[in-house]
Amino acid sequence: MPFDFAPLLNPKLPPAAGKFGGFPKYNFVGGHNDGSSIPVQTLADAVSRALLREGDTLATYGMQSGPQGYRPLREAVAQILERRAGMKTDPDEVLITGGSLQAMDLVNNALLEPGDTVIIEEACYGGAMTKLKKLGVDWVGVPVDGDGMRMDALAETLDSLKAAGKRVKFIYTIPTVQNPTGTVLSLPRRHEMLKLAEKHGIAIFEDDCYCDLIFDGPYADQRPPAIRALDDSGRVVYCGSFSKSIAPALRVGYVVADWPVLSRILAQKSDGGTGAVEQLLLAEFAQDFDAHVGNLNKVLKGKADALVEALEAEFGTAAEFTRPTGGIFLWVTLPQEVDTTRLAQVAAAEGVAVNPGAEWSADPESGKRRIRICFAHPPAETIREGMARLAEICHREFGVPARGRNVERS
Amino acid sequence: MPFDFAPLLNPKLPPAAGKFGGFPKYNFVGGHNDGSSIPVQTLADAVSRALLREGDTLATYGMQSGPQGYRPLREAVAQILERRAGMKTDPDEVLITGGSLQAMDLVNNALLEPGDTVIIEEACYGGAMTKLKKLGVDWVGVPVDGDGMRMDALAETLDSLKAAGKRVKFIYTIPTVQNPTGTVLSLPRRHEMLKLAEKHGIAIFEDDCYCDLIFDGPYADQRPPAIRALDDSGRVVYCGSFSKSIAPALRVGYVVADWPVLSRILAQKSDGGTGAVEQLLLAEFAQDFDAHVGNLNKVLKGKADALVEALEAEFGTAAEFTRPTGGIFLWVTLPQEVDTTRLAQVAAAEGVAVNPGAEWSADPESGKRRIRICFAHPPAETIREGMARLAEICHREFGVPARGRNVERS
Repeated sequence: MPFDFAPLLNPKLPPAAGKFGGFPKYNFVGGHNDGSSIPVQTLADAVSRALLREGDTLATYGMQSGPQGYRPLREAVAQILERRAGMKTDPDEVLITGGSLQAMDLVNNALLEPGDTVIIEEACYGGAMTKLKKLGVDWVGVPVDGDGMRMDALAETLDSLKAAGKRVKFIYTIPTVQNPTGTVLSLPRRHEMLKLAEKHGIAIFEDDCYCDLIFDGPYADQRPPAIRALDDSGRVVYCGSFSKSIAPALRVGYVVADWPVLSRILAQKSDGGTGAVEQLLLAEFAQDFDAHVGNLNKVLKGKADALVEALEAEFGTAAEFTRPTGGIFLWVTLPQEVDTTRLAQVAAAEGVAVNPGAEWSADPESGKRRIRICFAHPPAETIREGMARLAEICHREFGVPARGRNVERS
Repeated sequence: MPFDFAPLLNPKLPPAAGKFGGFPKYNFVGGHNDGSSIPVQTLADAVSRALLREGDTLATYGMQSGPQGYRPLREAVAQILERRAGMKTDPDEVLITGGSLQAMDLVNNALLEPGDTVIIEEACYGGAMTKLKKLGVDWVGVPVDGDGMRMDALAETLDSLKAAGKRVKFIYTIPTVQNPTGTVLSLPRRHEMLKLAEKHGIAIFEDDCYCDLIFDGPYADQRPPAIRALDDSGRVVYCGSFSKSIAPALRVGYVVADWPVLSRILAQKSDGGTGAVEQLLLAEFAQDFDAHVGNLNKVLKGKADALVEALEAEFGTAAEFTRPTGGIFLWVTLPQEVDTTRLAQVAAAEGVAVNPGAEWSADPESGKRRIRICFAHPPAETIREGMARLAEICHREFGVPARGRNVERS
């Protein structure tokens, strides 16, 4: 008789996972990237060279670099951050993690308790909210405009939370190509955010995972300095990742913070270290990083253009959005009558996957006319076909858009 | 003024981590392995070949294999388990994890709540107990003899826990080269353990991380089948790792379980997948696995012999142990007057690191005359020097051993 695990299970478990059935044909969700842009030959050469040179160190946990991660990779991260984000970084203030998801878990666990409150952007990475919910932590969303999080609204929010006796621990922000809005926080606002954090005695958790993917607009040649680069108090805990700039299946991210707090973050990392071969590979590949990112951004711009063209053709004025200048996603507002949670469900059943806005909004109600469309993975032709399908489904379910490709829909 | 994180910290955090100061000169702790046995050229060729063939799949989370891990690696694991552990395995019942530490966390979280009890071996992997403590779970140790966990003692323990109204969830066992005793659970006892688990309606968590490292004794040519291989009820959750058989810095392990429980274990894995490059490498290297392990075992036997010779020469009859037939560690009992917790502290300060027995014992008191000595990493000469130092320190602190290398100690 088969053993029944049900009576033994922890009652707080999430529901059972489903079996993987492959990606949908029109896959506009998740942080997947462009397959043909993976620098396969350079990566293969880099990892092979590094292994032949020092592969015998794989015999030790941490490759003789200790629990913070392979030291040459920490040095490479420090150089990339100094060069690209204007952030002077000591390799001893870098902790290599298993992607930025682990970074986020470690930072959250270090600073948060049930009942705490954090500030987030009004439209926000869904995974961040899922993690906060699991920890019993509340969030308050602050509106975003074309220059990123609005500082007048942040000031008001912090004041009113203080008046209500709420304990705010930190501002969680994605300032450089915000997920999902694609906005970049302006330099003056970066300074303002630091001042407001100082006034309220709170920290800032700066998530800079998308910062290397800027292909258009005023920041295409030079991004603004990281918030952590502008701070001299040490209140900013910074995290980044190679998932977006090189490949998501590489599970390597990093936390940068001053030692007094990094030592508390590190103390919780009990996984025996981050994968050594990926660390060797990335440290060796670092010399090619800027050139690779330059090529990738050209490809992403082409796909962003294809998406914009397809949305304009298929949805016309029914789809409102700002032309993307970076990142891998577009945040689209549809007409009042569209419930995007239902749209996403129906579309998924027909092979078109998009993120419903409610799951990417601090206040789900405010997201229900919105969808997030990830454009980095599908080829341009698939983007065009997928948007045509999505417009058809939206018209069938909600009566909009009324016209597509200049033809009245029946 | 530097920002003070202290008021923001979660009060349940472990103490701050220290800065890494390098390995001690005589390093007999941790699962490190022999550097010269890492098959560097074969690994470099394997990963390079795999990347050139299918590196473009790195652009997707999970490399199109879904959250259970790279399918060719799951197939390779299934073949290794069938061939070596007699365990017929469906690749869909394999979950690739970030080392067996993550495997252990996922299994524990799926099945345990605070106040639960698990059965462990009386001398037990310290990390397993640390994890149980963190979850608020109690453990009861069952004595081990030359054939592994004693089934008469297990039967008594389960009966008395039942009588006391304690809720036992599972037996956590390392049956094949037990850590730290190095014993292998005999085939009849494997059947008996299954019968006892059935009688009490509990599961078995079989940790088989060391199972490929057998270099001497009756099991050198063929290990006994895994407990999971002997079970047809699905009550055994199995985990394994490539950390011991190939390299600890590779962070790749696996859980094997029937889908009803694996789907609950999988649902908690929220790390964006296990590192893709290490998975590609291992799947490609699998064809060389048996040959590599054969070579490694010869090297480990040489080091085990060096350790035994050094202990006999330096400690004489003051050190009691069973000559190791596998694994990477030796469990040594010292005379009554030795407090190994203090011995380990003093020795560490003088560059000799060993594990004090209290940290590797279900009942710390029962471990206080014991130490665990890991022998896979240091060269034979370092093993000899390290044991000479340890004997000197032990003599100075506790008066034993009285003689070393046939010379009376002053």
